[in-house]
Amino acid sequence: MPDTPPTPVVNQLPGETLPYVMSAGEGARYEIDGRLFTLIARPEDTGSLFGAHYVSGGRGAEAPFAVHATEHQTVVVFDGLVHFWLGDRARILAPGDTVSIPAGTPFAYRFASNYTRILLYSAGGASLGLVPRVGLPVDAHVHPARPEHPVTVDELRDVGAEFGIGYPDLQKTDAALQHDETRPAGTVPYFLSSGEGERTRTFNQLNTFLSRGENTGSDYFAMHTTGAKAGYIPLHFHQRHTENFLCLEGRIWLHVNGREVLLTKGDFVHAPAGTIHSFSLDSNHTQMIGFLAPSIFEKFFDYMNEPTTDAVYPEGGEFFFPGEGFARAQAELDLVVVGAPPARTVALDV
Amino acid sequence: MPDTPPTPVVNQLPGETLPYVMSAGEGARYEIDGRLFTLIARPEDTGSLFGAHYVSGGRGAEAPFAVHATEHQTVVVFDGLVHFWLGDRARILAPGDTVSIPAGTPFAYRFASNYTRILLYSAGGASLGLVPRVGLPVDAHVHPARPEHPVTVDELRDVGAEFGIGYPDLQKTDAALQHDETRPAGTVPYFLSSGEGERTRTFNQLNTFLSRGENTGSDYFAMHTTGAKAGYIPLHFHQRHTENFLCLEGRIWLHVNGREVLLTKGDFVHAPAGTIHSFSLDSNHTQMIGFLAPSIFEKFFDYMNEPTTDAVYPEGGEFFFPGEGFARAQAELDLVVVGAPPARTVALDV
Repeated sequence: MPDTPPTPVVNQLPGETLPYVMSAGEGARYEIDGRLFTLIARPEDTGSLFGAHYVSGGRGAEAPFAVHATEHQTVVVFDGLVHFWLGDRARILAPGDTVSIPAGTPFAYRFASNYTRILLYSAGGASLGLVPRVGLPVDAHVHPARPEHPVTVDELRDVGAEFGIGYPDLQKTDAALQHDETRPAGTVPYFLSSGEGERTRTFNQLNTFLSRGENTGSDYFAMHTTGAKAGYIPLHFHQRHTENFLCLEGRIWLHVNGREVLLTKGDFVHAPAGTIHSFSLDSNHTQMIGFLAPSIFEKFFDYMNEPTTDAVYPEGGEFFFPGEGFARAQAELDLVVVGAPPARTVALDV
Repeated sequence: MPDTPPTPVVNQLPGETLPYVMSAGEGARYEIDGRLFTLIARPEDTGSLFGAHYVSGGRGAEAPFAVHATEHQTVVVFDGLVHFWLGDRARILAPGDTVSIPAGTPFAYRFASNYTRILLYSAGGASLGLVPRVGLPVDAHVHPARPEHPVTVDELRDVGAEFGIGYPDLQKTDAALQHDETRPAGTVPYFLSSGEGERTRTFNQLNTFLSRGENTGSDYFAMHTTGAKAGYIPLHFHQRHTENFLCLEGRIWLHVNGREVLLTKGDFVHAPAGTIHSFSLDSNHTQMIGFLAPSIFEKFFDYMNEPTTDAVYPEGGEFFFPGEGFARAQAELDLVVVGAPPARTVALDV
């Protein structure tokens, strides 16, 4: 932990491993064929642990089949409806649905709503270097009303080869709605419907594994949290892994090295190792997704929660704290508690 | 306009026509058969102009076919996927999709996601009196993990007769995704897909009619607004109609009789006639729905906007203000400007 923890950078990519906050819509922005690519984390911002970007666009915007040689990816649908192809399977996805894409798996998508937005999280993230190479830098925070910068598959193939990305010549078959309930074992491609995965619960909260280290080659795991309004958790930091907070719904207050920020849908915070942080869910049925890289912290949730088949968090009841699990997490895992839950400083009264 | 405009009531139903703010999840709450009914506006809160309530629930929760004798309703999908039956048509709806339901039209729904939430806005709203009669009052802000208060159709029929609600014995046929692009003329039932309707644009904003007075017997019209981050508009009030703000996505600051409040998804503000108000969209691609009752103000948007086929708001460019249209609105419509755009007082810097 540094002596004077750096306060987070706001709404700009730091270009070095510092904590930072990126509001929804902000980031490095490029148009490719009518789609808006918004880069919110590049390898140079994350110590090459990961990259993350949004793609948004209108009805009919689409990507050709792509395959990454080395990077495991997770896709989260934020808005709209998406036809998604993964290996030989096809789905229509809605907000909250996710896709786990191991290296070597071909995937493609087509947007079916007037405004559709997906997030792509990539282990390593070097492949994001493609975007500034083929995309048109833009000032707008939304996709253009009609495509202004067409890019052919041949152009993508030429540049993609440098970044380990191939563009196989596959057909987009018919996609359909289907409910996918299971996170499988191992490094295999899979879809998960909103609210599905491996659910665990604790006081006033449901923590659902969207992926574990076994699914991602230990590069990261992804945790979906829903819960009731609650105060901050104790201030803490991690020494060997980074944590990334994405607000999917509702309101979240985040304490990041002494600065308090409000996250609403699409807002992102990168907390590299050493960042003192805490969070507080601040509206009913708030939803947060955490990406933790590498995956060394996943047992924290096993220690602090119990498995459940319920699909909604338990609200109310008597307060309880799994003290034994917490002690075990402190002893075994990468967790250093440095303070009590912080007081709110800029909180609103509504 | 009263001499001392009342500051808004927060997170409680006022029981008289006062401005008030209702955060997502708050309101009078009842369980019916596993669904959570959250009443955010009753006739006694709105001078009998309208009622509004959320219904949320898990996968498989459903309502039988109902038909209202006198009330026109609009349904907005906030979360999840919904199978919806409207007269002899059936659809699968996603967030942002809406349904216009004239009096006398049978409708029903079934939730298809683990967490689904819809809003129902009803002209008059007297039918909402049914909910406290058959529902179980609950403290939780989310639906129960499994139904705890079953209600049979026979029970609904017995009580519904007092409120002008019938429960016809109709079959739920197969529903499918379908893109519905058109707001029809007249008082007819219709579906509208997210982002569809009658689109008009102005500087940095898209204003889309989800319904006009011609669709609702002049009881109300519904306006969908998307736009870029922007400051407040001038402080103003209306003498003969009420305005209702619902945040569908993003962040909105609202100035209500001198109090500044933040709206995020699902938050609601009721501004009865006489309320001095202004709003500011405060994140990229914010979405707001306004219900204005009765429908006397709808030409404001015709005067201030131009028709467009674009499905995304225009961001950037040179500032322009349609001064002629504004003068006409002030002369002809129910609009009293009382001050410049207010300064932000509790705004966050992120």
